[in-house]
Amino acid sequence: MFESAELGHKIDKETYDAEEPVLRLSLLEAQFTLAKTRDFPVIVLIGGVDGAGKGPTVNVLNAWMDPRLIETNAMGAPSDEEEDRPRMWRFWRALPPAGKIGIFFGSWYSQPILNRVYGETGASDLEKSIEEIERFEAMLAAEGALILKFWFHLSKKAQKKRLKALEKDSVNHWRVQDTDWERFEMYDRFRKISELTLRRTSKGHAPWHVVEGGDERYRNLTVGRTLLAALRERLDGVQPEPAAAAAPPPLPSVDGRNVIDALDLSLALKKKEYEERLAELQGRFNGLSRHKKFARHALVAVFEGNDAAGKGGAIRRMTGALDARFFRVVPVAAPTEEERLHPYLWRFWRHIPRRGNCVIFDRSWYGRVLVERVEELSPEDAWMRAYGEINDFEEELARHGCILAKFWLAIDRNEQEARFRARQDTGYKRFKLTPDDWRNRDKWDLYVHAVSDMVDRTSTSVAPWTLVEANDKYHARIKVLETLCERIEAAF
Amino acid sequence: MFESAELGHKIDKETYDAEEPVLRLSLLEAQFTLAKTRDFPVIVLIGGVDGAGKGPTVNVLNAWMDPRLIETNAMGAPSDEEEDRPRMWRFWRALPPAGKIGIFFGSWYSQPILNRVYGETGASDLEKSIEEIERFEAMLAAEGALILKFWFHLSKKAQKKRLKALEKDSVNHWRVQDTDWERFEMYDRFRKISELTLRRTSKGHAPWHVVEGGDERYRNLTVGRTLLAALRERLDGVQPEPAAAAAPPPLPSVDGRNVIDALDLSLALKKKEYEERLAELQGRFNGLSRHKKFARHALVAVFEGNDAAGKGGAIRRMTGALDARFFRVVPVAAPTEEERLHPYLWRFWRHIPRRGNCVIFDRSWYGRVLVERVEELSPEDAWMRAYGEINDFEEELARHGCILAKFWLAIDRNEQEARFRARQDTGYKRFKLTPDDWRNRDKWDLYVHAVSDMVDRTSTSVAPWTLVEANDKYHARIKVLETLCERIEAAF
Repeated sequence: MFESAELGHKIDKETYDAEEPVLRLSLLEAQFTLAKTRDFPVIVLIGGVDGAGKGPTVNVLNAWMDPRLIETNAMGAPSDEEEDRPRMWRFWRALPPAGKIGIFFGSWYSQPILNRVYGETGASDLEKSIEEIERFEAMLAAEGALILKFWFHLSKKAQKKRLKALEKDSVNHWRVQDTDWERFEMYDRFRKISELTLRRTSKGHAPWHVVEGGDERYRNLTVGRTLLAALRERLDGVQPEPAAAAAPPPLPSVDGRNVIDALDLSLALKKKEYEERLAELQGRFNGLSRHKKFARHALVAVFEGNDAAGKGGAIRRMTGALDARFFRVVPVAAPTEEERLHPYLWRFWRHIPRRGNCVIFDRSWYGRVLVERVEELSPEDAWMRAYGEINDFEEELARHGCILAKFWLAIDRNEQEARFRARQDTGYKRFKLTPDDWRNRDKWDLYVHAVSDMVDRTSTSVAPWTLVEANDKYHARIKVLETLCERIEAAF
Repeated sequence: MFESAELGHKIDKETYDAEEPVLRLSLLEAQFTLAKTRDFPVIVLIGGVDGAGKGPTVNVLNAWMDPRLIETNAMGAPSDEEEDRPRMWRFWRALPPAGKIGIFFGSWYSQPILNRVYGETGASDLEKSIEEIERFEAMLAAEGALILKFWFHLSKKAQKKRLKALEKDSVNHWRVQDTDWERFEMYDRFRKISELTLRRTSKGHAPWHVVEGGDERYRNLTVGRTLLAALRERLDGVQPEPAAAAAPPPLPSVDGRNVIDALDLSLALKKKEYEERLAELQGRFNGLSRHKKFARHALVAVFEGNDAAGKGGAIRRMTGALDARFFRVVPVAAPTEEERLHPYLWRFWRHIPRRGNCVIFDRSWYGRVLVERVEELSPEDAWMRAYGEINDFEEELARHGCILAKFWLAIDRNEQEARFRARQDTGYKRFKLTPDDWRNRDKWDLYVHAVSDMVDRTSTSVAPWTLVEANDKYHARIKVLETLCERIEAAF
């Protein structure tokens, strides 16, 4: 993989001086076209051995192009706000919007590779990271991102020479840190592990470009030309190689039975029993939320359900037991302008809470496989791949210690009609009823199908779905609170 | 101020039980109306003595109303990302959008009062903080925010009793911390200083409501009713009392002379001299940006100027000298949806850099007093008060150690026309030219007037304007870089 980056590539000054202005101009033009159409975001990863010119190259890209349309992210040590959230949060928050180029100086590759090099993780951890990265990048590509990954390489001999030369340089000596020399000691191991990682993660939709780092002119032209070619190709309408095919579309079950119709919606509680159990469960839930172990976790609760199934009421019984300082309810409606310029899950990632906190989604990322599927707002391949992307997302949350609780509140058609009519008749509740609600009823069977696929495909051991029989509100609220307590107790 | 909050107010159970459901329903209705119209944000501050029921009251508000439309912010110790930015950044980032209620548990009052109580600051520091808060809240009110400030009070005797009772309570004992007892020792001092602060900052547009904290039912009803009355009043169209009048509108100078026309636009540099000085200045600027003292500062550069005055080119000469990891260029265009739901300056606050970093605004908050004034996009009172708000904003940045450099790049009408024509003729530059650019030319004199007012009113010792004669690009770029170096050197 690195052989051709150890040949001592060089570009002479005349060639460089002739090509550079043309390249700059073409890059600028491509950048402006991109900014105008805002068709897709460009994600450029910069990695490689120390002293191979990563920093200078990033500076050259900023100098050649319009820096107003570039966001350079130096991914050094995470801040405390970042430490307190799942590992990938900091990358999500830095993803560029469509129309811009985001350069990641250090990326999601840095920790998996370095941890393995220093023996802090085993071979299977690296394998797992690689698989996760593959899925993450496939998702980005499917969402339209143009991804370029540059690996700056130097042979062992060349690296040593370069580090020494840099140290002597009066202007650039600060670029060489002690850690660079420590890493140099690990050169062979670093090479082996990064070679494996690059080989495994170089895909048509997110290719690695290994760049020999010894000659500045060679480096600059290689990176510039590669970026330009990729930009031009996409701007000219060439679609990227599709990522691995999604699972085949789900078929309706052959005997017509499904998890939703199998629910016993007659389950109900008497008012007195409800009030007793509510008080008991809210106390238990409150105690758990203040338990010292909770500070190591975070709670992410998702409420989905038929219209008028009582999500709001269930959420209120939940928040009623919590200290207002530590929860936030996020009602999910149409995405904002900024959200639409980012990959689908970006708008949920931004609300992921710090440790010790709780966030409650009133509707959620499952909109993709529910309303967007049924109303045909998203093409089939988008919602089909969403199942896998959502599972990856939730696994990432769970790995960080997030406790996930997902509720589907189910009512039947008659109960829904009765509730709609009651809303129409009650002053302040009229606000909650929209013409959409009546329209959605006509697609009842399609929704049942979509919900049952959703449960089949996204109820996992780390983030199981809880189906809540909600014709009786008392029963529903108690089941929600009980499940929350059990999920937290299990996590402790 | 606190006398009537030491009377031992109490509400009996029957009265409470009769009023509570009505109040809740009315609050919900008001909340839904607000969510639908998204006319204004509601900002609720919660402060006061410890043990006076601040936390429980916030929880009650969340329980009574729809928590999906409330954002509760516990302003405890700042995170490292917050520490690294001006003091007010954390409040700005937490401001609720129009249509929502933001509850601040702890607020911009906490530190000024506590620092003074513990003798860390002097009386004049508190005075200064009070003035800043007054201006900040006047700005929020003028931007449309409904502001309610609740101060929970207990007499010294009642506080002692309550703290002791809380400590014995098996459920709530965690609410009492050592610091609460430490503060109790300071009761008299705390009372005196908070009394002064409240008295000074209780305004028609942002009134303080002192609530006796001894009786839960009294507390809840008082806060609930106050919030409801304020919401209803605003929703019914009653406008808040105007904040202190802005300065009178600027008159055109009587002799027709102004700072812009006084510029000598013939200033120019020869190419050779330009290239030598550019190399020298970029080196100097680069050295300063990597100086260890820079880590205690941040650089905020603002570029404004006539269309086609060469802002982009000047910015590129600046960024060309910087390490791409530590700067970000923010091109300012029309606000996004989320930005429009917040006070004007919110969209700039979100880009304020951490210490050691640099952010360059290509156009800026001065749009308010330039294009928005001239094109009549904002009413006169909005842009008139913007001068003062901007000065406050920049002073806040400067106090934190931000180095501010503001450039107005000036060209004359002939030069502009020549540049427009050149853009039309150059492929990739055509992108930069819009019909707006031609239209703006018709308002040249209005712009000159607006720019000269802007300079008069916002060129301050902490954030002076640099007027750059930009008919000659070489001269302009050198003057920009030179000024930047001087500003940083002065700050060191």
